[in-house]
Amino acid sequence: MQLFYHPDLSPELAAGGSYPVTLSDAESLHATKALRIRNGDAIVLTDGKGYFYNGIIEHADSRATLVMVDSASKDERPYSPSLTLAIAPTKNPDRIEWLVEKITELGVANIILIRCEHSEKDRLNLDRLNRLLVAAMKQSNRSMLPALQGNIAFTELMNEPLPEQRFIAWCETGNEEHIKNLLKPGKDTVILIGPEGDFSSEEVNLAMRNGFTPVSLGNFRLRTETAGLMAVTFFNVINS
Amino acid sequence: MQLFYHPDLSPELAAGGSYPVTLSDAESLHATKALRIRNGDAIVLTDGKGYFYNGIIEHADSRATLVMVDSASKDERPYSPSLTLAIAPTKNPDRIEWLVEKITELGVANIILIRCEHSEKDRLNLDRLNRLLVAAMKQSNRSMLPALQGNIAFTELMNEPLPEQRFIAWCETGNEEHIKNLLKPGKDTVILIGPEGDFSSEEVNLAMRNGFTPVSLGNFRLRTETAGLMAVTFFNVINS
Repeated sequence: MQLFYHPDLSPELAAGGSYPVTLSDAESLHATKALRIRNGDAIVLTDGKGYFYNGIIEHADSRATLVMVDSASKDERPYSPSLTLAIAPTKNPDRIEWLVEKITELGVANIILIRCEHSEKDRLNLDRLNRLLVAAMKQSNRSMLPALQGNIAFTELMNEPLPEQRFIAWCETGNEEHIKNLLKPGKDTVILIGPEGDFSSEEVNLAMRNGFTPVSLGNFRLRTETAGLMAVTFFNVINS
Repeated sequence: MQLFYHPDLSPELAAGGSYPVTLSDAESLHATKALRIRNGDAIVLTDGKGYFYNGIIEHADSRATLVMVDSASKDERPYSPSLTLAIAPTKNPDRIEWLVEKITELGVANIILIRCEHSEKDRLNLDRLNRLLVAAMKQSNRSMLPALQGNIAFTELMNEPLPEQRFIAWCETGNEEHIKNLLKPGKDTVILIGPEGDFSSEEVNLAMRNGFTPVSLGNFRLRTETAGLMAVTFFNVINS
């Protein structure tokens, strides 16, 4: 089943009876050219906020397909608690792009791209990353679109409202506990992953003063994006 | 630290005193151009079989760098038990390439690319995949190179010697147990991941007759390569 996305759907509107929405350019093109939908076809949509909707194609058009939406249902599958991954983007944008795609499939609520003392200049294209998020949500038949924030300074992040269970991946001393011994299931969590040049000790100290516990992700050196992926996978397995 | 790879190193040879090896074209080019090594520089090499070696550059050359190898040490870090991932390659070769890279960083002993009833035609380039394996092993500072076998028919795989703990990822009935409830730590394991069109029921039955247990990887649809990644990550976390 192919899922469609429209950010303006709402269960309240659907409860009031059938109403029309227009699919975006990209969704319309995909629907008409790749999937060859026709007037009268039934489709399923999501709002990216936890609901699925039934719809009927009213007017198939490669630039603006009109859909009549007529009922909403809550996605009742057991989602994990909310995970926030705050990660320093890699120099190579491909690596952060695939990370964003994979962790959306695996399950993540918030992705925050952070700027650290040892960050390299990055070439972030947030629009492109958001398109990848939508595609990965649809592909994995999920109804929750992760929220993406870009280019937040590390010090600024410390002032944001963050979940209570807080970890920073850092292996400087070699005595850090493995995250598997510390992460408690059932709790909203934030995990910080540093840049290729790692966090500075000032950053680690600041994080610790803000309630973050330094943790190891294992005995082997991982690339930034692999560390992010491992943290997200582990969180979801522990909570599934 | 940058690690070098040479498949013909051995601790027995190193025990007999300093002896010469020639780095491959690709390693020589990288050493001289990117890392700018010079005669007399000390380097560390691995044989991909669990040993590290100290070496001294005898003659830096962009096509054939000569190294004098003078001592071997066993990699004493706790490696996980042996994991064999048997997976149907994706239609898009990029996706299997990054999978191979990531699982080498995360830890896997054997990668078997399988041909299933519902497999699409693939364009596997085993040489390229092997080069990616070597690069990922070096990048993650590991000393064990995963063994890669390509294009094994599913039925043929069933006749291969495989570890005793055997799982097949399959979610047809919805009643399969989650792998986290069944996988026992400390045991060599094989996990099968099917193609985009999933395993056929004949394949699942054949696997079950050969001691495989069907397992779920969670409530959400995962792409083939994401499922492979999740299985490998989970195995390593459980065993770390």
